[in-house]
Amino acid sequence: MKVFVVGSNGQIGQRLIQLLKDSKEHTVRAMVRKEEQAESFEKEGVETVLADLEGTVDSIAAAAMGCDAIVFTAGSGGKTGDDKTLLIDLDGAGKTIEAAEKAGIDRFIMVSAIQANNRESWHENILPYYAAKHYADRVLESSSLTYTIMRPGILLNEPGTGKVYAAENITYGSIPREDVALAILAALNERHTYKRAFDLIAGDDSIPDALQKV
Amino acid sequence: MKVFVVGSNGQIGQRLIQLLKDSKEHTVRAMVRKEEQAESFEKEGVETVLADLEGTVDSIAAAAMGCDAIVFTAGSGGKTGDDKTLLIDLDGAGKTIEAAEKAGIDRFIMVSAIQANNRESWHENILPYYAAKHYADRVLESSSLTYTIMRPGILLNEPGTGKVYAAENITYGSIPREDVALAILAALNERHTYKRAFDLIAGDDSIPDALQKV
Repeated sequence: MKVFVVGSNGQIGQRLIQLLKDSKEHTVRAMVRKEEQAESFEKEGVETVLADLEGTVDSIAAAAMGCDAIVFTAGSGGKTGDDKTLLIDLDGAGKTIEAAEKAGIDRFIMVSAIQANNRESWHENILPYYAAKHYADRVLESSSLTYTIMRPGILLNEPGTGKVYAAENITYGSIPREDVALAILAALNERHTYKRAFDLIAGDDSIPDALQKV
Repeated sequence: MKVFVVGSNGQIGQRLIQLLKDSKEHTVRAMVRKEEQAESFEKEGVETVLADLEGTVDSIAAAAMGCDAIVFTAGSGGKTGDDKTLLIDLDGAGKTIEAAEKAGIDRFIMVSAIQANNRESWHENILPYYAAKHYADRVLESSSLTYTIMRPGILLNEPGTGKVYAAENITYGSIPREDVALAILAALNERHTYKRAFDLIAGDDSIPDALQKV
C-alpha cells in the first residue's frame, strides 16, 4: 500500500513515516504544510506533498491522489487555542475524510484519543479537545470508508515494547508513541480492524495478536 | 405539539417562546440553565425545566421527556471562547440530538447559520463557529430524527415582516430574528420541511409559502 500520512511532522507521524519508509510492504507520501518540512523529509528519501488542513478538500484530495490508504494523526497541539482545535482536529479531519472519498481512497486510519467515544471519561481540563475528537470519529464512522479508529491512552516518549492491549472500552492507560506507530502499520492490512474503533494502551499482547482481538 | 426549547434565553428563543405561549396549536417547555431564568419564565406562565447543555445526555433527555418536538436555538455567543463553541454549539447540540433519540422525540428543528454546509462561504473571522455548526448539522442529518435545519442569514433585531426567502443555497442575506421564530413555529408541522436543510433570509414569500418550496 502507498500510505498518505496527515500529521507527518507530529511525534507519531514522524515515527510512522520511518516505519513506512523501512517497510517492504508499503510506501509513504508525507503531507507537510511548510517547504522546510518537505526539504527535511526529501533529504531522507521520503516523498512529500505540500498541503494544508486549513485549505480546501480538493487540495487535500489532490495531494492524496494515487495513495491506497490515509492515516490521520494530525493535531493542533496544546500551544494553539481552541479555534485551531475546531479547524484542525475537527474540520481538518472532516476535510481529510471527504478528500479520501473524493480521491477514491477507501482505507482510513484515524488516531483518536482514549475514550473519545465516551463523554463520561473525558478529562475535565481538555473537554473541548475531546469534543473535537469525538465528532471527527463520528463523521468517519458515518462515512463510506473502511476505517479504523485507534484511541491510544496517554502518549509517552519512552521506547516501544511491541506489547499492547486493545479493546472497545479501556477507561485509562498510557502507551509509547512508538507502539502506536507500530499498531498503525500493522492495522493497515488487518481485516479485523476494518470498521472498528478501540482504545489502545500498553499491555501484554503482541501487536498482531491485539489487533486480532478487536 | 408540546415543544421543548433549548436556548430559551437567547434572542430567538425568547421570541419563539412567546409565539408558542400564544399559539392555540402548541404548548411549550423552556429549558433554562439558571433558577432566576426559570422564575422569570414561570411568572409569565411558561413551563420551565432546569438543565444544562454541559450536563449529561440523560439529564437533557429527562428534561425533554414527554415533549413532541425539540427546537435547538442555543449558542455560546460571542462573549465566551472557542472552548464553549466546542462544548455548547457543537457538543451541546450533539447531546440534545442524542437526548431526543433517548426520549423518543422524533421532531427536531435546528437553528443553524447561513451556508454552514458550505465551507467556501464561511466568514474568515468566525471560521471556528461555522465549523461547530457544520458538524452539529451533519450529526443531525445522520440521526434517525425527523429534522429540519434552518440556516438563517445575519440576524437583525428589527420587527419581523412575515416575508422570507428560503432555499437550499442562498449565499448571503439577513433576516429579523422575529421572522426566524415565526418560521420555526410554522415548520413544526410542515411536512415539506421534514429531513430538509435550507438557508433563510428576508424575502418576498409568506412564511407558509416559503416553507412549501424547500
